[in-house]
Amino acid sequence: MIVNSLMNNKGAIVGTQFKQVIAIVGGTGDLGGGLARRFARAGFRVLIGSRNQAAADESSADLKALAATYDWGDIDIEGMDNPSAARLGDIVFVTVPFSAQSATLKSIAAEVQGKIVIDVTVPLVPPRAARVQLPAGGSAGQIAQHLLGDGVHVVSALQNVAAAHLNSDDAVECDVLVTGDNKDARQVVVDLLAAIDLQGFHAGPIDNAAAAEALTSVLINLNKQYKTHAGIKITGIR
Amino acid sequence: MIVNSLMNNKGAIVGTQFKQVIAIVGGTGDLGGGLARRFARAGFRVLIGSRNQAAADESSADLKALAATYDWGDIDIEGMDNPSAARLGDIVFVTVPFSAQSATLKSIAAEVQGKIVIDVTVPLVPPRAARVQLPAGGSAGQIAQHLLGDGVHVVSALQNVAAAHLNSDDAVECDVLVTGDNKDARQVVVDLLAAIDLQGFHAGPIDNAAAAEALTSVLINLNKQYKTHAGIKITGIR
Repeated sequence: MIVNSLMNNKGAIVGTQFKQVIAIVGGTGDLGGGLARRFARAGFRVLIGSRNQAAADESSADLKALAATYDWGDIDIEGMDNPSAARLGDIVFVTVPFSAQSATLKSIAAEVQGKIVIDVTVPLVPPRAARVQLPAGGSAGQIAQHLLGDGVHVVSALQNVAAAHLNSDDAVECDVLVTGDNKDARQVVVDLLAAIDLQGFHAGPIDNAAAAEALTSVLINLNKQYKTHAGIKITGIR
Repeated sequence: MIVNSLMNNKGAIVGTQFKQVIAIVGGTGDLGGGLARRFARAGFRVLIGSRNQAAADESSADLKALAATYDWGDIDIEGMDNPSAARLGDIVFVTVPFSAQSATLKSIAAEVQGKIVIDVTVPLVPPRAARVQLPAGGSAGQIAQHLLGDGVHVVSALQNVAAAHLNSDDAVECDVLVTGDNKDARQVVVDLLAAIDLQGFHAGPIDNAAAAEALTSVLINLNKQYKTHAGIKITGIR
């Protein structure tokens, strides 16, 4: 479906008033869990996808328990397998390790045609995650666009935000470089990020995903040196 | 020569008290000129290298005129051909367009053995400078290390700082990612940057030059959107 980018800060589409459904494929990991937490709390319906139904159910239950503990009110969240989440989501985030990217994308390709898929993959090559080792395709973002085909608007984002920050209620001191070949799709993602208090910037075509992906290894270097969760802020604009 | 990284903020080596000589190969361009200005003003001897002696002389004269106009006191700066600058410099910056990188490095390779060479090359592919198009070798930094060989410590830096900022007296709101395979050499560069009021960070091995180089295309995107000179700041550390 075509997703309207006009939404209020709770994620409801202005004018039609239905609740937007965010699918998070690979949503049981730290980063996917952080996104689930923030989107659920912002009023979206969130589908946590996993290869493992029990893990998806557990992540969903954990977030509901957190919501009860901190009095966030009801949150709308449900665990399921990855293809089901991709099929039922209006917008689909993919937050899996690079080694699982291709298989995961193939498993949801049919379900996401016509949608926006936000690829959060960082092509790290353990154990040397602190060394930039971009893939032959240029970047994970380009690989995702190639695998899913022209019927999917792939947008790459969120490679530089530490999961620890997403899993907190603090303001995130890290801007998000948003790349993708379709400007309207990028804008939808910038708007979604704003709904969870993240500042996104249009950073060019999907080829530019390489910049954010490579930067993650630099940030891992800094994290080791300074025992922190480093990020970046764009300067010269605000 | 081995360069001592202990220097005061005027660039003099502490203990031995000789003035450090900074060569800027390709120093007549905007970025090289900005570095020449800042290093000369900070008290270093600066050699502006060019393929064109007249252009090097003119850049040198322009900076001396600027120093007189703004009462900076005497600055020590001289124009010459690139190989001469590389031979006489203690530390050698290379600030040429990517298309000229290989030929320039070959022309100075013999002169820089045993030294630190700071590669500032950004592998932009005009006219699509706003699109990341990293070279087959991974990055310009890796190409430089490969071309100059193991007898040279190549350090990559300064790809993200706008020339307009270097050519001003304002504080530069952009951190510098410093990459290179030798940590001591990186530290020398971090110290040199501090002498001209720039904050450098150890960002890992020379392979990680790809991150800063790719980021430049993203910043060019932002510059077009916002009519600015964008930069980055590392967060989570200070």
